[in-house]
Amino acid sequence: MCEANAYIEKEGKEELFMESVDVIQPEAEDKLLIMNIFGDQKIFYGKIKKISLINHKIVLEKFEEK
Amino acid sequence: MCEANAYIEKEGKEELFMESVDVIQPEAEDKLLIMNIFGDQKIFYGKIKKISLINHKIVLEKFEEK
Repeated sequence: MCEANAYIEKEGKEELFMESVDVIQPEAEDKLLIMNIFGDQKIFYGKIKKISLINHKIVLEKFEEK
Repeated sequence: MCEANAYIEKEGKEELFMESVDVIQPEAEDKLLIMNIFGDQKIFYGKIKKISLINHKIVLEKFEEK
């Protein structure tokens, strides 16, 4: 299967946000709808930092209020 | 393999931008670095509209000057 895991990068560490992600759909500036292969949905407030499909890895960056 | 094809959506049609994409890395607002499994790189000026890993499909939207 070709799903990937989504991690939040923070201060050089990676924290799992969602496993077995299928769909990533930006809904607005700094708002992503993320769905896994089981149909679960989560909203992430932030940006995509990097996706590597071959490594099955999505790295996300949280929106930080300034 | 888990690479995907990237398409540009324009007026309801999809035009192939790059096949066998591995990496998608936003470089700036409206600027994406896209790499395929062969190491070829392309810059896309625009946004990710939707990614479905299970469908091996990345849909991009061009940045339109207003």
